[in-house]
Amino acid sequence: MTHLIELTTPYLLLDPEKMQRNIMRLQAHMDELGVVLRPHVKTAKSIDVVRRLFPSGVGPITVSTLKEAEYFADFGFTDMTYAVGISPDKLPRVARLIHAGVRLRVLLDSVEQAQAVVAFAQRDGIRIPALIEIDCDGERAGLRESDEKIIAIARILQESHQFEGILMHAGGSYHCPDKAAKEAAAEHERATAVTVKQRLNTAGIDCPVVSVGSTPTAHFATDLTGVTEVRAGVYVFHDLVMAGIHVCELDDIAISVVATVIGHRPDKGWIMTDAGWMALSRDRGTAQQELDQGYGVVCAMDGTPYRDLIVTNTSQEHGVVALRKGSKAKLPKLAVGDKVRILPNHACATASQFDGYVVPKIDELVFWPRINGW
Amino acid sequence: MTHLIELTTPYLLLDPEKMQRNIMRLQAHMDELGVVLRPHVKTAKSIDVVRRLFPSGVGPITVSTLKEAEYFADFGFTDMTYAVGISPDKLPRVARLIHAGVRLRVLLDSVEQAQAVVAFAQRDGIRIPALIEIDCDGERAGLRESDEKIIAIARILQESHQFEGILMHAGGSYHCPDKAAKEAAAEHERATAVTVKQRLNTAGIDCPVVSVGSTPTAHFATDLTGVTEVRAGVYVFHDLVMAGIHVCELDDIAISVVATVIGHRPDKGWIMTDAGWMALSRDRGTAQQELDQGYGVVCAMDGTPYRDLIVTNTSQEHGVVALRKGSKAKLPKLAVGDKVRILPNHACATASQFDGYVVPKIDELVFWPRINGW
Repeated sequence: MTHLIELTTPYLLLDPEKMQRNIMRLQAHMDELGVVLRPHVKTAKSIDVVRRLFPSGVGPITVSTLKEAEYFADFGFTDMTYAVGISPDKLPRVARLIHAGVRLRVLLDSVEQAQAVVAFAQRDGIRIPALIEIDCDGERAGLRESDEKIIAIARILQESHQFEGILMHAGGSYHCPDKAAKEAAAEHERATAVTVKQRLNTAGIDCPVVSVGSTPTAHFATDLTGVTEVRAGVYVFHDLVMAGIHVCELDDIAISVVATVIGHRPDKGWIMTDAGWMALSRDRGTAQQELDQGYGVVCAMDGTPYRDLIVTNTSQEHGVVALRKGSKAKLPKLAVGDKVRILPNHACATASQFDGYVVPKIDELVFWPRINGW
Repeated sequence: MTHLIELTTPYLLLDPEKMQRNIMRLQAHMDELGVVLRPHVKTAKSIDVVRRLFPSGVGPITVSTLKEAEYFADFGFTDMTYAVGISPDKLPRVARLIHAGVRLRVLLDSVEQAQAVVAFAQRDGIRIPALIEIDCDGERAGLRESDEKIIAIARILQESHQFEGILMHAGGSYHCPDKAAKEAAAEHERATAVTVKQRLNTAGIDCPVVSVGSTPTAHFATDLTGVTEVRAGVYVFHDLVMAGIHVCELDDIAISVVATVIGHRPDKGWIMTDAGWMALSRDRGTAQQELDQGYGVVCAMDGTPYRDLIVTNTSQEHGVVALRKGSKAKLPKLAVGDKVRILPNHACATASQFDGYVVPKIDELVFWPRINGW
């Protein structure tokens, strides 16, 4: 646990006002579209953050690991979707949560998984609510909308009253810098969902849950008719990847890594800091974007980005800070011991390198612990 | 803490026999060259691993964070080098360790740092042994061998009896697949060290410590005359980056991530597992090598690699397993629930995603915890 009286860099700073603004922005958009938001807590993994989403509530949330499910259950959350395909060996942990009163939905996309869930539930005398994963853009897991197996799986689950609906994730929207492209990705996600729901209904199968979501499509959806809930995670903090595709501005990014200058290489135009990849993560999510931000954008401690200053290279505990290639800006004067803030490429990856968030309050710093692992 | 009775994937498996073989191989080479090995514990960060290097000893070790220094001090280690440039605000933590009886050397490459160390030591009434960082290949921090500042800094430290010597790291050797190139990198590292030591001696400054090292140069050095110690870290586990530059074989890699198959995409030739980048890390260290191993090489549970099978893509908790582009091999039949082992690109990065190692013993599994953070 970090001792706040003598903070050692690198540490992870969280701006609670920016976070609150991000939370309210998406919630307002969802309210406008009349859809429930089921935030994905995989980004923050911290009760102190998630309590800002649900001051006294019990969900709904999305989790990426059973450890998150158990952690949030301990804090009274009872409405969760575990949004990674279930393997049979994880069902005992799922069952323990269900026995403890958590409504935990699992996700699957094969007959084998459906049969395993049904068999386990019957043996254990419980109901394990399940969603079928649909792939709307070829990015990851799930069945294509026209796949015959959707109906077959839904029937297997329906017979034991375990079928709850469908879930998809428009991961392709992460590659859409244009507003029109993000809007089209959102509409494609919605339309695919509605088509599958209609196919199920035509086959005589009720489909109460129609879950879609990604941070870009959640923000750029203009109509969500037929959708019952939206999932999004990284929006709570935002990051350079989201800024790079114009889902947020740099100024919306609520977390940054605080680093100390530990040296200089004037011959190379480098400023060395103590935030290497162990702090920033190896995520290079902006490498394929229009503007490659290296391992992160370097800011003064008040949050103002230095012009063209990025982390160009890292080793485990060293970060090389330099001007972007071709820049005509001047390298700022930063002495050994000076502090900088580094905006991360990918909030989920960078936050996972830390055991919690340092949060400035009116006249103190507080520490919000987070979990990692499985 | 992982409950070994029901291991949830992904988890990190450590083969203690392969590790022991790796440890013995480098130790034998160092013994042959007559040089002390100061292992870098930043890779393992686990007393259970480091006890295999020093069954009852107190070091010498190299650390990359003060948290590692404090952790190993708690287990009785007293001889450490903190091999990341020191910033003045970290000196109170350094001093606490020195007061507790740890011989902790710090590293620096500027007059400002030397002055700060001397001033702090005088104020605190202790001696803080310091090494000057030399850059032998332009990869990271340090002063070039001809830099006048080396002598100036050494004098500042020498006056207060805090100068111990010089340290360099041939990071460039990571880009040397050829045997001759690795041997040349090792000789260049040694020769640079000896040149700097001679410059110091000529200036009337004693230089007792001449510390060099990187896993490739440590293994391929053929002569270390003039060097007093060698540092290396990743060799304890090895990884795909080291195999890619022929420092080890695939079969030497002692850690792997155990994953479970959670689905299939026959239309794309994908097998989905539950080891995404959160487990494997975002490290793509083989991307620039001759053979790009994606996010890792996929093996059967007995450790045999499947022909041409790698993790081609990841999201947070999903890994896409597929045949290498252009492969004529057949996708192995792996059912939902089947387990695989994935060899990591970079052992330091992958191990840091976990809170410890699952280690098979004669007829049980044990858990060796590790630390992360600062």
